[in-house]
Amino acid sequence: MGVATLEKPAEAPAAQMPEQAEKLVIFAWSGELDKIWPTLILATTGAAMGKQTTVFFTFWGLFPLVKNDVRITGENWMQKMLSTMNRGGTGHLKLSKMNFAGAGKAMMMHLAAEHHVAGPQELMALAQEMGVKLVPCQMTMDLLGLKREDLIDGLAEPAGAATALADAQGAITLFI
Amino acid sequence: MGVATLEKPAEAPAAQMPEQAEKLVIFAWSGELDKIWPTLILATTGAAMGKQTTVFFTFWGLFPLVKNDVRITGENWMQKMLSTMNRGGTGHLKLSKMNFAGAGKAMMMHLAAEHHVAGPQELMALAQEMGVKLVPCQMTMDLLGLKREDLIDGLAEPAGAATALADAQGAITLFI
Amino acid sequence: MGVATLEKPAEAPAAQMPEQAEKLVIFAWSGELDKIWPTLILATTGAAMGKQTTVFFTFWGLFPLVKNDVRITGENWMQKMLSTMNRGGTGHLKLSKMNFAGAGKAMMMHLAAEHHVAGPQELMALAQEMGVKLVPCQMTMDLLGLKREDLIDGLAEPAGAATALADAQGAITLFI
Repeated sequence: MGVATLEKPAEAPAAQMPEQAEKLVIFAWSGELDKIWPTLILATTGAAMGKQTTVFFTFWGLFPLVKNDVRITGENWMQKMLSTMNRGGTGHLKLSKMNFAGAGKAMMMHLAAEHHVAGPQELMALAQEMGVKLVPCQMTMDLLGLKREDLIDGLAEPAGAATALADAQGAITLFI
Repeated sequence: MGVATLEKPAEAPAAQMPEQAEKLVIFAWSGELDKIWPTLILATTGAAMGKQTTVFFTFWGLFPLVKNDVRITGENWMQKMLSTMNRGGTGHLKLSKMNFAGAGKAMMMHLAAEHHVAGPQELMALAQEMGVKLVPCQMTMDLLGLKREDLIDGLAEPAGAATALADAQGAITLFI
Repeated sequence: MGVATLEKPAEAPAAQMPEQAEKLVIFAWSGELDKIWPTLILATTGAAMGKQTTVFFTFWGLFPLVKNDVRITGENWMQKMLSTMNRGGTGHLKLSKMNFAGAGKAMMMHLAAEHHVAGPQELMALAQEMGVKLVPCQMTMDLLGLKREDLIDGLAEPAGAATALADAQGAITLFI
């Protein structure tokens, strides 16, 4: 009987395989409304599905993290000019095309409200509540003259590309 | 004692591990010729390689799915205006840069024909034949006022971000 | 005999699982300074972390691979015009927005120098030194009239989408 048992396929190995956590890592490079929107929709959806979700904000993607009431950022005239031309904050986003000096954007926000689709400001708050890790890229913060106090509360510690890539191994990865 | 030990797992687990299907999931956000082209080239190549291939069309990426003979889409003036400025259909795509009111696009299509590279219309048909799952995003269809009958035949059921992310786990994932 | 077998440490399943190499595969579609920059920063960081790193340059992304002293590429007037409007080489890149006829770009390069961030030219050389595989896309080279001798030395053999997708399975994949 002992022998018979030996021939039985012992336990289902699946149960002993190391569980790979489901992960989603988004590299948010773009600062435009129509790019930050899918970033936040995917991030909140991923978190709702139980995926460990990280958004790494870099380059133009940092500007939506600026507090809405911060007008000008940067230490030297070049960084200041950049922030003047490209005002930060989820309340000041533009469409990447068909913005028409704000008319296209207004239309899009109107349509979203009509269809009960949350805007970027709500989605950013929702992402934080759901535990999405929002990481600003330290190197581009330095480059663009963005300081930690310019950015909204509730973000993870600023980090670099290596941290983002370490998170990304085995994850769904998207560069948006 | 023997019996107790028998309960320990023996067999080589590798042989019993579930095979992971090779998958490719593209999030097609852009509606421009020079973005839809790599999307469809990668999708058809992936399918030819035996990968389970899905393209999730969202936002501007929905417009190439509009039937070429549908002129205006949308229910309210805002959605109609959008479709007027940004005509749908694989026959009406523009380059994201150097379009020069269509001259750049004409040049590119000419070069493609000369080099026997299939255009987006052919590639879309080929993708369908090869079993690529073409999924329109329900939420952005609603937002932009695109109805199922505005879109070409042979698409999968419209779905949401959760469906796309569920497909994406373990796949090669690209946001184009 | 049964006992002998019992005493064998039942195989550690982990030891027999095929090791999955850590890989990073970037599809570099964009030719602009602010896109080629993150491409090369991520690629060199990935390589430094020991990841097997490949950058597959396609479409507009091929132009940064053109030698800086090559002025015009292409065989017919269309390809030549394209290269005139969109000069290749890491020394001639533009920002995707806020380029302001080169002023924005000059500002960005100045800020980078000030913050000791390497520019694209240095990063391209560094990537080669670190063993990043830089693969130009054969099909778009043909389409755009770029010949092997127009491109910098030290690249991998030109290849197609199938090669890129084969590399991409199991890798961190980004379309930039």
